[in-house]
Amino acid sequence: MSMKSIIDETFLLNNETARRLYFEHAEKLPIIDFHNHLNPQEIYEDRSYANMTEVWLGGDHYKWRAMRAMGYPEELVTGRIIEKSEGMAGRTPEENSEGYAEAGEGLAGNSLDYRRFAAYAATVQNCVGNPLYHWTHLELKRYFDIDDALCPETAETIWNKCNALLQTEAFTTRNLLRKQKVRVLCTTDDPVDDLKWHGLLREEGSDISVRPSFRPGNVLDIEKGTFVSYINRLSEVSGIKITDVDSLLEALRIRLKFFIENGCRVTDHSLETDFFRETTEDEVNDIFTRRMAADRDKEGNSVCNLTVDETAAFKGYILSELGRMYADEGLAMQLHIGAIRNNSERMFRALGADTGFDSINDYNYAPQLAALLNSMDVTDQLPRTILYYLNPKDAAMLMTMAGNFQGNVQGIKGKIQLGSAWWFNDHKSGMQYQLQALADMGVLSTFIGMLTDSRSFLSFPRHEYFRRILCNLVGTLVENGEYPKDMEFLGRIIENICYYNAEEYFRL
Amino acid sequence: MSMKSIIDETFLLNNETARRLYFEHAEKLPIIDFHNHLNPQEIYEDRSYANMTEVWLGGDHYKWRAMRAMGYPEELVTGRIIEKSEGMAGRTPEENSEGYAEAGEGLAGNSLDYRRFAAYAATVQNCVGNPLYHWTHLELKRYFDIDDALCPETAETIWNKCNALLQTEAFTTRNLLRKQKVRVLCTTDDPVDDLKWHGLLREEGSDISVRPSFRPGNVLDIEKGTFVSYINRLSEVSGIKITDVDSLLEALRIRLKFFIENGCRVTDHSLETDFFRETTEDEVNDIFTRRMAADRDKEGNSVCNLTVDETAAFKGYILSELGRMYADEGLAMQLHIGAIRNNSERMFRALGADTGFDSINDYNYAPQLAALLNSMDVTDQLPRTILYYLNPKDAAMLMTMAGNFQGNVQGIKGKIQLGSAWWFNDHKSGMQYQLQALADMGVLSTFIGMLTDSRSFLSFPRHEYFRRILCNLVGTLVENGEYPKDMEFLGRIIENICYYNAEEYFRL
Amino acid sequence: MSMKSIIDETFLLNNETARRLYFEHAEKLPIIDFHNHLNPQEIYEDRSYANMTEVWLGGDHYKWRAMRAMGYPEELVTGRIIEKSEGMAGRTPEENSEGYAEAGEGLAGNSLDYRRFAAYAATVQNCVGNPLYHWTHLELKRYFDIDDALCPETAETIWNKCNALLQTEAFTTRNLLRKQKVRVLCTTDDPVDDLKWHGLLREEGSDISVRPSFRPGNVLDIEKGTFVSYINRLSEVSGIKITDVDSLLEALRIRLKFFIENGCRVTDHSLETDFFRETTEDEVNDIFTRRMAADRDKEGNSVCNLTVDETAAFKGYILSELGRMYADEGLAMQLHIGAIRNNSERMFRALGADTGFDSINDYNYAPQLAALLNSMDVTDQLPRTILYYLNPKDAAMLMTMAGNFQGNVQGIKGKIQLGSAWWFNDHKSGMQYQLQALADMGVLSTFIGMLTDSRSFLSFPRHEYFRRILCNLVGTLVENGEYPKDMEFLGRIIENICYYNAEEYFRL
Repeated sequence: MSMKSIIDETFLLNNETARRLYFEHAEKLPIIDFHNHLNPQEIYEDRSYANMTEVWLGGDHYKWRAMRAMGYPEELVTGRIIEKSEGMAGRTPEENSEGYAEAGEGLAGNSLDYRRFAAYAATVQNCVGNPLYHWTHLELKRYFDIDDALCPETAETIWNKCNALLQTEAFTTRNLLRKQKVRVLCTTDDPVDDLKWHGLLREEGSDISVRPSFRPGNVLDIEKGTFVSYINRLSEVSGIKITDVDSLLEALRIRLKFFIENGCRVTDHSLETDFFRETTEDEVNDIFTRRMAADRDKEGNSVCNLTVDETAAFKGYILSELGRMYADEGLAMQLHIGAIRNNSERMFRALGADTGFDSINDYNYAPQLAALLNSMDVTDQLPRTILYYLNPKDAAMLMTMAGNFQGNVQGIKGKIQLGSAWWFNDHKSGMQYQLQALADMGVLSTFIGMLTDSRSFLSFPRHEYFRRILCNLVGTLVENGEYPKDMEFLGRIIENICYYNAEEYFRL
Repeated sequence: MSMKSIIDETFLLNNETARRLYFEHAEKLPIIDFHNHLNPQEIYEDRSYANMTEVWLGGDHYKWRAMRAMGYPEELVTGRIIEKSEGMAGRTPEENSEGYAEAGEGLAGNSLDYRRFAAYAATVQNCVGNPLYHWTHLELKRYFDIDDALCPETAETIWNKCNALLQTEAFTTRNLLRKQKVRVLCTTDDPVDDLKWHGLLREEGSDISVRPSFRPGNVLDIEKGTFVSYINRLSEVSGIKITDVDSLLEALRIRLKFFIENGCRVTDHSLETDFFRETTEDEVNDIFTRRMAADRDKEGNSVCNLTVDETAAFKGYILSELGRMYADEGLAMQLHIGAIRNNSERMFRALGADTGFDSINDYNYAPQLAALLNSMDVTDQLPRTILYYLNPKDAAMLMTMAGNFQGNVQGIKGKIQLGSAWWFNDHKSGMQYQLQALADMGVLSTFIGMLTDSRSFLSFPRHEYFRRILCNLVGTLVENGEYPKDMEFLGRIIENICYYNAEEYFRL
Repeated sequence: MSMKSIIDETFLLNNETARRLYFEHAEKLPIIDFHNHLNPQEIYEDRSYANMTEVWLGGDHYKWRAMRAMGYPEELVTGRIIEKSEGMAGRTPEENSEGYAEAGEGLAGNSLDYRRFAAYAATVQNCVGNPLYHWTHLELKRYFDIDDALCPETAETIWNKCNALLQTEAFTTRNLLRKQKVRVLCTTDDPVDDLKWHGLLREEGSDISVRPSFRPGNVLDIEKGTFVSYINRLSEVSGIKITDVDSLLEALRIRLKFFIENGCRVTDHSLETDFFRETTEDEVNDIFTRRMAADRDKEGNSVCNLTVDETAAFKGYILSELGRMYADEGLAMQLHIGAIRNNSERMFRALGADTGFDSINDYNYAPQLAALLNSMDVTDQLPRTILYYLNPKDAAMLMTMAGNFQGNVQGIKGKIQLGSAWWFNDHKSGMQYQLQALADMGVLSTFIGMLTDSRSFLSFPRHEYFRRILCNLVGTLVENGEYPKDMEFLGRIIENICYYNAEEYFRL
């Protein structure tokens, strides 16, 4: 027996006003996905996928984390076998085989790819209330027209049906994007990137506008072992000999111009530790010079010789200078604040970064953020800025901080934004929480809305997910008598949040 | 076509129990507004207002922030023109006229006051889910009997109708207060204030009891450039030559007595940075003496020569000594914790303080607060204390901290209070959150309830807003089977929270 | 007139799916209470209680705090009279008798025990929305079959009825546990405890499995005045001369083995200040040696001679080594994080610890916790770990931190758990919040569920309270179309969370 999927017309739309707002306004609009981690080469080459495991379990750490919580061995999660390292607890997998046995049950003889898919099917069935449950079934319905719930009983049928479709022309990367009416995509790119694939796509005149985003994380992360070699690479690529902060900024300016020529409208920065303190150009020059002259360890990495206080001074100075450049060019500055990364050394060694071992940090940063924003605002060179919290405890602080810097002589609407519910907050209650903070302490209708932040070509129904939640929230307010049933004006607000505000904000 | 306003009989009252509690108990009660920033002179003089812009946009930073988020130029927000300062980004308003054009559309030729009102009408229409939407329409209904929603289409009619009414006798400050059955008002006053207007009102035997609150912020803010001159002024006003902490406290005691003679029952303190560490009288004397002898800058301000650690020691010592005085006099001590102010230097220079550039800070302060409260409690000289959080992340901590100090030999009910949802939390979900924290971790029925914290004579329907939310929350609990439908006892609880608890707590 | 109690069949079950999940799956299951503070001697001796005040007000600080918030004198709260201490404010109770008068009203001539019960009856009637209201009536219904709401009017009847029942055989400690189908109990015990009562119960072959938990708090709390004498006691009990960290760990290992022989499956740790920083065995040896040689004060307590940084290094090192032992033995490690204790010095002196003067702290600890967990995980010796937050602001951080360490070669399902809503969070909205965090960012169906953490033999209906809230939350998701109505699989999830997950996790 198979259970019907949860996805139907009225999914998450609990009242008539919500349904009208969604069907008459939100549903029809195309998508501007202004922040994601898609690979532009895969778009240019219009690749397709061998099977559902490749497309779903190839790089999705949300799914991996859920599967690990279920106790599945890493082989079924990422396909990698984790061997006992030296000094590790004295047990072999055989001695602790319960988890393995259960996970592999009835699957022996199948391909690893199928066993991984089946393990995910069993996992997702257990994800009551988790966005994975919603995303999975939205994706099965919207791309593959599947009406059954994914679970061990339906896994094989769904596997076969989806894999067959994946071989067809309709399931290449570009057609997947077209299916979801994706009009603009902003990928995330390093300043030294040659933007080759973006260029080829532009030359070709693609109907999907694929734009690079400028993410100078490798410049800001002065504490990292790769800093010195990165700066040398930036020298090379920019043609500027970087010897001090001035030439560093000049090199960045050159690369930023190059990004803008290639369609860049938005930049991105991850702030994970202290990121600002008052400083002077002289001090930053001294910090930079000392850092460039640091010793190397035996693996060839440059050993950071700075205090946290010094790295904060450097980061803050560069962020502020970059922000002024962005303001001058009309670009938006995204600040993603509050991740703590690579927490399991053991798994980092085995699998590298971005494999599901990052989480939410809890440091306080209001005064630093105020000072950083002020440092640009003081000459009215604060760019359009989008503040994303990872720790939901920061939502109210961040929303009101945004309100401190809305005043601007350019008359930009919603100049400082509270970013859409990010990463671990990207679920129904997280989105409601972010929208509520925005409505309570800001002006909801100026919101630029949703982005996927995803590495997956199948993740675009998350815009639908967001739009349904948004329409339901606004519809509920109206039905509760907190806003008049002015469907025309409400429709405009919904359309603006779903599409037009972003179009205007990013000057698309 | 105009849309009907949201304000009707059952606004926010979603079930029968809620409606009975509101209409049979809450609605009829007068108001004790034990904390606000009204100007007593304006009450004494019983002034009236020229038009809605004066009354609504004269000093309301909530509205200003929303209008700035909409992109309106400062001229339409506060009426002030922000000129490009030296070194500011190289653009003139003309070069960036989009925002201006939209804001002024169709309004050319009108007075600036009307254009500002119209800009607010367009702003509030966009404030879906924001308390401004609710407050605005409550005020239009309760004072002006207006049933239409405020929006660009209705702006002119409403402008004319309201302005005409504002000229009538019924709309003087005192009559506005009477209309809302305001029985007691506690304004916020500096220890050096002569309380002239409070005195005149008392002499006159006003039916509205206007009481001063003692807010010694200028004494506690030892880091400020104005500290030394303020202390000199306090010396003068009190007749005590202030040379050390002892004489400082003596001067404060004299002023407190004067306030009490003028009807003071409550005090107020804003804690924005570290505010306590263990110290000794000797150390505090040394800190004070050094601070008084500090150099002055070229603008004549005294330059703070203390560390944060020293300012915290000073603040904590004075707060503790003040608290003992309050306890001895039966006064309540309000602690407003967690603002971060004047974040935009540029706008502070242009507009000064309290103009909409303050927000929520995120520092941790539980151990300090425990130590401060304990320092008074240890001799059972902790006064009635009201703890307000600005950052909602602190609600649970603060509520349970209050619970640590309820034990008192005086048998005061609800001696330590979690203050009503403050400032950025003063909206429907913020109030529900505060009430829920109180109910979950404290005794809801001991709550002293709502205050406006407002500068506006039109803000008193916020008590109605609070009362409806309170009745709805309690009614919902009852309808959900979590409390018996004992309407008599529930009615008493509602009446106590809306009026009688405050009357008893402040000994009115 | 008496009001009917809120407890009926459908209490907290607001929809059909919720009711089916509860009645068909949750209700029938026995209880594993894997963390509480029951006294094993009282179980062995199968004691009974003189009256309701003894059983309800003998040690329950939740009730005491509520009564203090009502303004009742300590005599009616704990039965203790708080005398004015030297230097205390110059008032006698007689001079401030309002609170006393009200509290004692109509009760003169009654026994103190009855007056205390009556004061609680008046208090609980005021606890709208507080879990005390729900717990009290669940306990009255489930143990005493009382259908009336407790309030001043019903207090005497209920007092008499309950007290009569308490004298009967059915109300001994063991029969109270049997009434609630308690199958496994884990008490909380010190490593030096001889576990005499646990042993006697095992010898006897009790139908209730009473297991000790290993709580080495006295070893970790190196800053306490009792540390040195405790270590000496541990030396004695373990037979190991403790001279350094190595011998300290050896002594702990011996005691842990003894606990395991007595049925121990779970350990417990309260982390209240900094608890980790990177260190070396040499440094920890030095810290330990210096601490053992510290001076004593005149009361004979050893005066801590370490910095916070040093105590954190010590705690972290010992926690990490203990964790490895737990992993080797298959034990679970509970970390209770974020309390701040004994905040009122005055009341601590009068009543001692655990009397209702503890609350929620607000420090940040994500990086420390990541480092602590990593220090064990790095050799795959991280045990099953349960992370409990006291400050709800930490829920999201903690849930995602748990997700960082799920990967394990042993295939343990839900290896790192977000613990059930703890202490001040143990109410309806707190439980919903914890379950929501778990569902949003983890895999809800791996959750090991509820524990009482209680000192009271009457507190087991809190499992029913939890189960109803859980079923309602899942039922609501289903009714809202967010999960298919697959009653068989949902039933299994509910049964696992209520019983079987804990059974498997603790290897019972």
